[in-house]
Amino acid sequence: MTVSDNLSDILKAFVSIVGEANALTAAADIAPYLVESRGLYHGTSPLVLKPGSTQEVSAILSLASKTGTPIVPAGGRTGHVGGHVPREGQADVVLSLERMNRIREIDTVADVIVADGGVILADIRKAAEENGRLFPLSLGSEGSCRIGGNLSTNAGGTAVLAYGNARQLCLGLEVVLPTGEIWDGLRRLKKDNSGYDLRDLFIGAEGTLGVITGAVLKLYPQPRGRQVAFAGLDSPDEALALLERASLLCGTALTGFELMPRIGIEFTTRHIPGVRDPLASAHPWYALIDISTSDSAATAERMIDTLLEEAFEAGLVKDAVIASSLAQQEAFWRLRESMSEAQKPEGGSIKHDVSVPVSRVPRFLAEADAAVLALIPEARVFAFGHLGDGNIHYNISQPVGADKAAFIARWREVNAVVHAIVHAHAGSISAEHGVGQLKRDELIASRPAIETELMNRIKQAFDPAGIMNPGKMIGTP
Amino acid sequence: MTVSDNLSDILKAFVSIVGEANALTAAADIAPYLVESRGLYHGTSPLVLKPGSTQEVSAILSLASKTGTPIVPAGGRTGHVGGHVPREGQADVVLSLERMNRIREIDTVADVIVADGGVILADIRKAAEENGRLFPLSLGSEGSCRIGGNLSTNAGGTAVLAYGNARQLCLGLEVVLPTGEIWDGLRRLKKDNSGYDLRDLFIGAEGTLGVITGAVLKLYPQPRGRQVAFAGLDSPDEALALLERASLLCGTALTGFELMPRIGIEFTTRHIPGVRDPLASAHPWYALIDISTSDSAATAERMIDTLLEEAFEAGLVKDAVIASSLAQQEAFWRLRESMSEAQKPEGGSIKHDVSVPVSRVPRFLAEADAAVLALIPEARVFAFGHLGDGNIHYNISQPVGADKAAFIARWREVNAVVHAIVHAHAGSISAEHGVGQLKRDELIASRPAIETELMNRIKQAFDPAGIMNPGKMIGTP
Repeated sequence: MTVSDNLSDILKAFVSIVGEANALTAAADIAPYLVESRGLYHGTSPLVLKPGSTQEVSAILSLASKTGTPIVPAGGRTGHVGGHVPREGQADVVLSLERMNRIREIDTVADVIVADGGVILADIRKAAEENGRLFPLSLGSEGSCRIGGNLSTNAGGTAVLAYGNARQLCLGLEVVLPTGEIWDGLRRLKKDNSGYDLRDLFIGAEGTLGVITGAVLKLYPQPRGRQVAFAGLDSPDEALALLERASLLCGTALTGFELMPRIGIEFTTRHIPGVRDPLASAHPWYALIDISTSDSAATAERMIDTLLEEAFEAGLVKDAVIASSLAQQEAFWRLRESMSEAQKPEGGSIKHDVSVPVSRVPRFLAEADAAVLALIPEARVFAFGHLGDGNIHYNISQPVGADKAAFIARWREVNAVVHAIVHAHAGSISAEHGVGQLKRDELIASRPAIETELMNRIKQAFDPAGIMNPGKMIGTP
Repeated sequence: MTVSDNLSDILKAFVSIVGEANALTAAADIAPYLVESRGLYHGTSPLVLKPGSTQEVSAILSLASKTGTPIVPAGGRTGHVGGHVPREGQADVVLSLERMNRIREIDTVADVIVADGGVILADIRKAAEENGRLFPLSLGSEGSCRIGGNLSTNAGGTAVLAYGNARQLCLGLEVVLPTGEIWDGLRRLKKDNSGYDLRDLFIGAEGTLGVITGAVLKLYPQPRGRQVAFAGLDSPDEALALLERASLLCGTALTGFELMPRIGIEFTTRHIPGVRDPLASAHPWYALIDISTSDSAATAERMIDTLLEEAFEAGLVKDAVIASSLAQQEAFWRLRESMSEAQKPEGGSIKHDVSVPVSRVPRFLAEADAAVLALIPEARVFAFGHLGDGNIHYNISQPVGADKAAFIARWREVNAVVHAIVHAHAGSISAEHGVGQLKRDELIASRPAIETELMNRIKQAFDPAGIMNPGKMIGTP
């Protein structure tokens, strides 16, 4: 008996494209492809396909369009919004890019790297480094997420301030369209005004318009100097003023500017082994400042010294420490990056991934805090994030001793209150994690009707059979 | 008698939207809207409308869609490809944004400026400067081009290397759709992953998908240090090696890296008053290097000194001079910016605006030179441009004493030879000036059929009545 004996003729035809060795049909094998890291979604699927080439992806999508078979593309499956999870109760076929993990070329004169869609982000960063270059996209999940997924979700991360999102790091794409046609847009040009910007339409489309099978990515010089500082502040207003000074002083050398609340230091020092408070006394807020310079280590030193000196004089910073070693730089970042993890032992957490114009962050925080505490007086607001991008992970830990399930049950109610304030500040309720299943209906309800209408028309134009990642990002509620 | 007495009822209805004072119907008044700066195109039109608000633009497009009236959006009308010129022999109505020239808001904390689509680029740069900021888009035509046109054509210019094209400088748009519906996408968010990237679809669409009536633009710190150097080199290969060193050393502080041939120095010193050769002896090639630093003037000084010192030692640079004053910096740039102008007194010129991967520029130049000289042995190749962007203005001046008209008559023949080499290097035959009427048919013939097909589907989805800037950029030949 072969793996495909129990499959329908259509599914057998899919298996024959990749070969039985590259198709999963047993429930236990498929199970990891049906879930999302936080357990919010559980889908169903009869088949996982692991094509080994763009041509095989093409054959799969061509057959899918002809037979009306829904396809869910999967990369590293690290997303937080259920975008890579098949729908529940349907027969979506999963198309995993995991075997397409070849770095096709590195060109250090043009400063580009060309990679299959399934290459793991950390492998791209490593290949760049081995060639004396930097690929700046950096995420907590970089050891398992794959570049096709990073591009399909327009991933952000910790270096957006200086280098931009995944969108800004990509020069060209190879995409298999829902019909199976291959669009070879693997350009490596810095300038090309020769038609509509198809590349940026596929980037961030969460696999609803096609499958990204290859990409041309930009490489950057490795910084020669780096300085990381940790500063204690009285308020988000001071953090904003400090950010403005840092931007003016450092320009694009300002690589990271992260905001953290006191409760974040308390939770991380309490729950994450090895994390210590870098400062001697407590402060209501903290900023992590990361500066990278291309010309020399001395420039970064001068910048951080000047910035902190000016900030102390202006009374913006109450206390600060500059990391004195690579290990200490990493320790400061570890503190920041374990914020989410440190919330888990404290019980349930209701989360928001929002952005507002950078100048509105303090007002947003004040208004959201008031609204949330009016709703749940003992709730513990835990707001942190990329202040330089106006992107706040506005999380709320349950009251001490409260019932976790009862708290989590108020997720949508709390979302509604927080998102209303985001909208009042012309912000986005989906800043960097994307839409997927989690925010689809809320976005359809909240964005201008004409915007959803235009998106639906694009979807129809690219995927008339409606096979690509159905139920995600767009459509009708 | 009023201006609209001779118009059809439909055209009268258009006039009534803006009022007679803001409609041009006399041939002499309309004439300036029917031409292109180099005289390549002459169109026809019965009516120029100058709406004063987004609502008026909406009413115009709504009526145009209902009546099937073709609309040609016009900004500063400085384009080189006939994108803003009405078709010949048709009754296209011109919609000029010139009255919509208000800067709506400047926010120096969020570092954004919000402007009407009709604001002149130089006015935006000036407003930024008055607020201690830089808006980096900079073009020869900045005194008359308008930001809606800059965005619709994804303008490039001289600071793309550090800051990107117009696309990278825009956070949000307000667009009136062909149906008259208004898309308020005036976001000022650095991060927003909440649906398809409509913004980047309108940017670079050359007015074929709607009219850009407003934009949120990014502001940057004003540089504290700037250094401009002019270097003599033996070959494009050396220029490329110098560029690589400069990129590694300066990172994003490298604001400009321009390549010029000896003939460019000869023509400019011969024909442009006040232009002098900055170097004592002649060199086959020249590089103009512009470095801007945000932290201090000293950093820029150190960078330029280190770069030239290393380049001399490596034998890359034969001679070089660093501008010793602002006036001298401007003189170096003036030399570069008068390259096109200096060709005119030398007779006819066949032009190309192409890009190839940066590392391929020397090979492209060698191959194109050989092919062009095989065709016209005495032709004078005059190739210059933004080496840092891989964007070469590959111009060819007529042989000395040749017949200008006979030379220009070979435009398409020469284009074919040069563009074939561009394609062989996976380049673009439309790097920064856009498509318009000039390159539409050639692009349709040369790009993959699926790409044109997707563009046509998008056009159909956004502009079912086909009223927006017909005959430009896309369509069937």
